[in-house]
Amino acid sequence: MLYPGKSTGFQTKAFRRQCIDIKIECRGVCGSDVHSINGGWGEVPLPLCVGHEVIGKAVKVGSKASTVKVGDRVGVEAQIQSCMECKQCKSDNENYCPKKVDSYGAPYPDGTIAQGGYASHIRTHEYSTFPIPDSIPSIEAAPMMCAGLTVYSPLVRAGVGAGKKVAIGGIGALGHFAIMFANALGAEVTAISHSTKKKEAALRLGAKPFVCSRDKDWAQPLAFEFDYVLNSADMGHKVNMKDSHQLLNVGAELHHVGLPDAPLPELMVQDFASNGSKMGTSHIGRRTEALAMLKLAADKNLKPMIETVEISEDGCKKVVRGVHDNAVRYRYTLTNYDKAFGKGEQV
Amino acid sequence: MLYPGKSTGFQTKAFRRQCIDIKIECRGVCGSDVHSINGGWGEVPLPLCVGHEVIGKAVKVGSKASTVKVGDRVGVEAQIQSCMECKQCKSDNENYCPKKVDSYGAPYPDGTIAQGGYASHIRTHEYSTFPIPDSIPSIEAAPMMCAGLTVYSPLVRAGVGAGKKVAIGGIGALGHFAIMFANALGAEVTAISHSTKKKEAALRLGAKPFVCSRDKDWAQPLAFEFDYVLNSADMGHKVNMKDSHQLLNVGAELHHVGLPDAPLPELMVQDFASNGSKMGTSHIGRRTEALAMLKLAADKNLKPMIETVEISEDGCKKVVRGVHDNAVRYRYTLTNYDKAFGKGEQV
Repeated sequence: MLYPGKSTGFQTKAFRRQCIDIKIECRGVCGSDVHSINGGWGEVPLPLCVGHEVIGKAVKVGSKASTVKVGDRVGVEAQIQSCMECKQCKSDNENYCPKKVDSYGAPYPDGTIAQGGYASHIRTHEYSTFPIPDSIPSIEAAPMMCAGLTVYSPLVRAGVGAGKKVAIGGIGALGHFAIMFANALGAEVTAISHSTKKKEAALRLGAKPFVCSRDKDWAQPLAFEFDYVLNSADMGHKVNMKDSHQLLNVGAELHHVGLPDAPLPELMVQDFASNGSKMGTSHIGRRTEALAMLKLAADKNLKPMIETVEISEDGCKKVVRGVHDNAVRYRYTLTNYDKAFGKGEQV
Repeated sequence: MLYPGKSTGFQTKAFRRQCIDIKIECRGVCGSDVHSINGGWGEVPLPLCVGHEVIGKAVKVGSKASTVKVGDRVGVEAQIQSCMECKQCKSDNENYCPKKVDSYGAPYPDGTIAQGGYASHIRTHEYSTFPIPDSIPSIEAAPMMCAGLTVYSPLVRAGVGAGKKVAIGGIGALGHFAIMFANALGAEVTAISHSTKKKEAALRLGAKPFVCSRDKDWAQPLAFEFDYVLNSADMGHKVNMKDSHQLLNVGAELHHVGLPDAPLPELMVQDFASNGSKMGTSHIGRRTEALAMLKLAADKNLKPMIETVEISEDGCKKVVRGVHDNAVRYRYTLTNYDKAFGKGEQV
């Protein structure tokens, strides 16, 4: 971790004209942290400070950064930089820039490795840094920075809204945001889970009805029912692909936002030909979607379900294990950074 | 085969008010015939007369059939009946009707098994039967009934046209139609094949440029290049999925129209997250698309590449083996039905 004034063994990237230094107030705990720690997504450059979904206060703002002022409360997404010059960046798809830099574990062009938010401070680019509306508490804004945006972006790109029937598979951090956002966007939302344990929460978030995928032949009566199915479970490799595709209306999409360590189950083209359905995925979201998501959450007073844990060695152990064991309901936010790191504002 | 006046062991379904009896003039030879004969798509009800892609003359027309007159030259698609009452049928997606009856090997509601076009006659529903524009020769219209429609439908549903960059993978029967139609629709078409043997044909059909997928790192310079990739090869199970997905622009689709006997290669969600691309498939096309395809082919004088073979025991052997061994350039049409079956018009 990056303690002010202490040598940490981490190199800090140079402060550039569009950089923002943020003193971290709290941060969400993402499944990607666990995938990075256990190596499930491949090797990571060690030592590594994981963690995105950062909320904090801007303490230093570059001369060319115009969207943030010193003192602003801001959030940082899971991607910290893109080239701003390629076809993707120029078409407002900077989250698909081939030169993008993830918020931790990825090399900047100068070779420095981006380090995440289990730390006192983080240095960001203003384009990945979003002002947080006053009405959203920091502990709720934090998990929106990755979990929220990761489902908000595909939902809006698929045109989810009034008149659309949507199913959300898996009710974890991402799924609970997906139910909440799809409902807030005006769609009719069905929640699908392999157990009934999360039924009450799903209904509270706006799902109607709730379907248990352990019930015999659960998928059959729902054939051709949905205009969009979002599988949020970080276990696409265990999903019954035939059942899931069967739910879709003609030409509609089964969208995976969990990135499991293992490949998807075996699939034949024939398995999704009966409705000409599609399978898709996505990578976080664009800046304009992040800003729109925060506005929607503020306007509709959306309340994600968060467990807070004070940051400390024990707290970190607890949250990493809780995410790994799927015990969290539905996202941890690590808090009380001042206690762990002190109140000093400068890096 | 259904010889006039001879007992064949096949039951003919009852003639209903929207039925058309067709004396067959010629018929295309589809990969599905071979998959049915070798059991690669599963068991088939034996004895079976395979074969769709039929062109012939209407010799009997039901009292409620209004789109065809006795004497009309018509074509029959790969699906012969749908319920016309379900959500899919009512939304002009009868090719995704769960009660659809394939043109051969599928049971009608009364238990009769649909029999295909290696026969003197075929009994169809008018909805699956299309008037053929005068300017299209029968031998060229025949393969449009399945191969043509199978690629035309997804191309138009994906909005392929002027201003779009499209890649067609695999240059067989389907691929050669896809290059021809995508080009006629106004798109910029790149042909991709694993050998250069079909380069000249691809360019003649309207592709520009031609890319050989055996060249080292062929996919890399084409990253993010295409708005749509149609994989027409009946070997999706051998396709390098990562390379293919890499070609797509953000959110664009890799569409498989070949239905191999084997599952698709192993795939991780991560493999298509870098551009948020999709994988899709489809099932033939709707009636309105078939009519539009025929109009496009007539208006633009499109010329598919066809090899004709006279129907006979030897002829059938030759075409089945030729399709199996991928020796055909690019579709066989079986001709001279009068010689094999006689000129008698009645069943």
